[in-house]
Amino acid sequence: MSVAKLPSAGFSITVRLSLTADAGAVGRLTTAVGQAGAIVTALDVVSSDHKRVVVDLTCDTADSAHAQEVTASLSEAPGITVRKVSDRTFLLHLGGKIEVSSKVSLRNRDELSMAYTPGVARVCRAIAENPEDARRLTIKRNTIAVVTDGTAVLGLGNIGPSAALPVMEGKAALFKKFAGVDAWPVCLDTQDSDEIVDIVAAMAPAYGGINLEDIAAPRCFEIEARLRERLNIPVFHDDQHGTAIVVNAALTNALRVVDKRIEDVRVTVSGAGAAGTAIINLLLKSGVGDVVVCDRDGALHRGSANLTPQWQKLVDCTNRDSASGTLSDVVAGSDVFIGVSAPNVLTGEDVKSMAKDPIVFALANPDPEIDPREAAEHAAIVATGRSDRPNQINNVLAFPGVFRGMLDAQAESWSDDAALAASVAIADVVGAEEVNPSYIIPSVFDNHVAPAVAQAVKDALRPEG
Amino acid sequence: MSVAKLPSAGFSITVRLSLTADAGAVGRLTTAVGQAGAIVTALDVVSSDHKRVVVDLTCDTADSAHAQEVTASLSEAPGITVRKVSDRTFLLHLGGKIEVSSKVSLRNRDELSMAYTPGVARVCRAIAENPEDARRLTIKRNTIAVVTDGTAVLGLGNIGPSAALPVMEGKAALFKKFAGVDAWPVCLDTQDSDEIVDIVAAMAPAYGGINLEDIAAPRCFEIEARLRERLNIPVFHDDQHGTAIVVNAALTNALRVVDKRIEDVRVTVSGAGAAGTAIINLLLKSGVGDVVVCDRDGALHRGSANLTPQWQKLVDCTNRDSASGTLSDVVAGSDVFIGVSAPNVLTGEDVKSMAKDPIVFALANPDPEIDPREAAEHAAIVATGRSDRPNQINNVLAFPGVFRGMLDAQAESWSDDAALAASVAIADVVGAEEVNPSYIIPSVFDNHVAPAVAQAVKDALRPEG
Repeated sequence: MSVAKLPSAGFSITVRLSLTADAGAVGRLTTAVGQAGAIVTALDVVSSDHKRVVVDLTCDTADSAHAQEVTASLSEAPGITVRKVSDRTFLLHLGGKIEVSSKVSLRNRDELSMAYTPGVARVCRAIAENPEDARRLTIKRNTIAVVTDGTAVLGLGNIGPSAALPVMEGKAALFKKFAGVDAWPVCLDTQDSDEIVDIVAAMAPAYGGINLEDIAAPRCFEIEARLRERLNIPVFHDDQHGTAIVVNAALTNALRVVDKRIEDVRVTVSGAGAAGTAIINLLLKSGVGDVVVCDRDGALHRGSANLTPQWQKLVDCTNRDSASGTLSDVVAGSDVFIGVSAPNVLTGEDVKSMAKDPIVFALANPDPEIDPREAAEHAAIVATGRSDRPNQINNVLAFPGVFRGMLDAQAESWSDDAALAASVAIADVVGAEEVNPSYIIPSVFDNHVAPAVAQAVKDALRPEG
Repeated sequence: MSVAKLPSAGFSITVRLSLTADAGAVGRLTTAVGQAGAIVTALDVVSSDHKRVVVDLTCDTADSAHAQEVTASLSEAPGITVRKVSDRTFLLHLGGKIEVSSKVSLRNRDELSMAYTPGVARVCRAIAENPEDARRLTIKRNTIAVVTDGTAVLGLGNIGPSAALPVMEGKAALFKKFAGVDAWPVCLDTQDSDEIVDIVAAMAPAYGGINLEDIAAPRCFEIEARLRERLNIPVFHDDQHGTAIVVNAALTNALRVVDKRIEDVRVTVSGAGAAGTAIINLLLKSGVGDVVVCDRDGALHRGSANLTPQWQKLVDCTNRDSASGTLSDVVAGSDVFIGVSAPNVLTGEDVKSMAKDPIVFALANPDPEIDPREAAEHAAIVATGRSDRPNQINNVLAFPGVFRGMLDAQAESWSDDAALAASVAIADVVGAEEVNPSYIIPSVFDNHVAPAVAQAVKDALRPEG
């Protein structure tokens, strides 16, 4: 059973319609839209005469197929002619979502001779003599790269660097909006780990940090580790650490709600990829009682066959009792379920089998491991990645503040302590008097989050921190 | 003899001074600044009481040493105390000169769900299915990379990628200011041509064009040629082709002034590097009578020893009469001298030995091949790279419009025809009734230039063009 798709602005269309100008016209219009299950968000008259009126009707639909159904049902309604259908999401993307702006005005010769030749030569010479000055006199101070090879983009998989670009642009826009960080998309037309490491290392001089994004596991682990070795700026794979930070923050508050201590809980994690691995590492750092991680074939334990090096590292520090079996087997008696895997792998019965006051984070996108409404029948707390449900686990809560803090600290590397500090900062934005089963994590639009994360990260990464 | 250095805003300082508040105070201040040879551009009172006044004095100086002299002479003037000296060029560079701006507002959930998940997924899928859509739905449509390895930066030589960054940022600011092009600095920490080619090829998906910048010869030729082979976006080494376009434009108008036809003139070029090579190729395309090119050891001719492959190509199409000898030997009788080499390699006597109405372009920066005042004693027309003399040959006249035109044409490659068209467009901005020995090339602030160049390039690069 998959979760019903609700209309959202992500699938919003504007339809230009011509109507007969009679008393029943608008009635027929709203009936048609309503029958098709869409939600009207705007109705603008474009032109009108005695006989006909032309309107732009904007409505949210559930997905592309639904948008076509809506348009079809409008076409079939008597007296209505569909002239043009515009997809608002595509309109918003025309020409891209970010641009490069000049901070100097260059209005006259004086400004030109300071920002460019001959004045700029002195600035170049100062940096050549004292490379540290690059952090003061260039964009390096506030600029990061968002690097992808397009191999694991959203839920879309290996779609390549060009098709990944809209996501990286969106991420750059979010970095600026939420934390004033200048982020630039680097979409690489190679899937060779060696080459990606060499490229990122070569282009690093202009950047104060590297955000790896949507690179498939297990290559993402190796690329991150090798870049951290080579570079003197922080390298942060958001799909791993951003997710882990937000999950850990949500879990912190969820445990406050159900009044359990992290040392006492057993967590079952479904999904041993990039996100799962990072979540587990941060849970362990937070002092979690025990974790059992499941992949497609069930629980990973010391006796599992064909463990990859990555998985070997995981079983070395999880599954204390070497539990084996299916996800259903090991989730029984767990306090917490965290899914970063696939749709519909958890049942209501599974949740029922968990320890008292089960906590269920079903984060697969767009379709969670269990319908959140079904989970809520048995769980004390449910969180998902969806924006139309309470407790949305969204990386936007972490990455802007994380990089703001790194840049402000002029950090040369990332640390697990900083991840933990960021996580605590996010959790603490939800006040003790506010926290409840439907509010364990702040809204993505809560403007206290990024500054709190930035400060925590800065403090954790500063030499004296 | 080198050219006298004049005070300029590129070496402008602001000095905070405390003065005794008597009638002679300002007199002593201006005397001290005047004696030191600086030019006061602003005098702002910061605070004042009955006894003393604190002012910020801003003045242009000739260079760093001169700025120190000025400060010293102010310190020595009676009744004046220097409190702080700020370098305006460094102040302007704090934090860098460009930033990344979002074109979407992301104020609420609806905007977020169109610009980022879930809406963005549809845009990604559209590009994955139809890669051509990247030019419509991403920054590729208006974005270029400014790529350097920092090996030949301004007159500073091989200063590396970090120290080159302020130049690339300045260039990006100029691209935006003059042609609305989004340009991003790519400063590479490698001088391996193979690696540079691979890196630029890998990162190309996000860009609609590549501007190579300040890469030393002869590697620049190979890198450009190989990238042109590999990429389906235009690759343009500005130090070569930008310079050639502007030189050719200036020469076109200079020949109008002295009433000579390009087919009839002999040109001597001093400097067989990146700029010299491109200039010669464009002169040949323009139909020049003959060119003789000199390097450090004199004229290159078919019999020259140790010709590099690049130079072999040059001698194959220049120096019809296989002239040999020093620069002085071959410049005698020439109609045009073009220097892109080193300071003070040409004498007044050399200019005197040229054909009637000599044209002298002495473009070495910051010190030209000959003091332009000395050249002007014998030449009909003199041009330099300096902003404080008439006829400044400045690449800013070419590169913004060139890339605007490429992007507007959605061009897949650059062409010599486009270079010639750009050159003619720049020349024609100077009207037939305006052209004279002191005005053969438009001002860098003439806002007719970039649109004219863009249109010419677009027409030349379009399939039907």
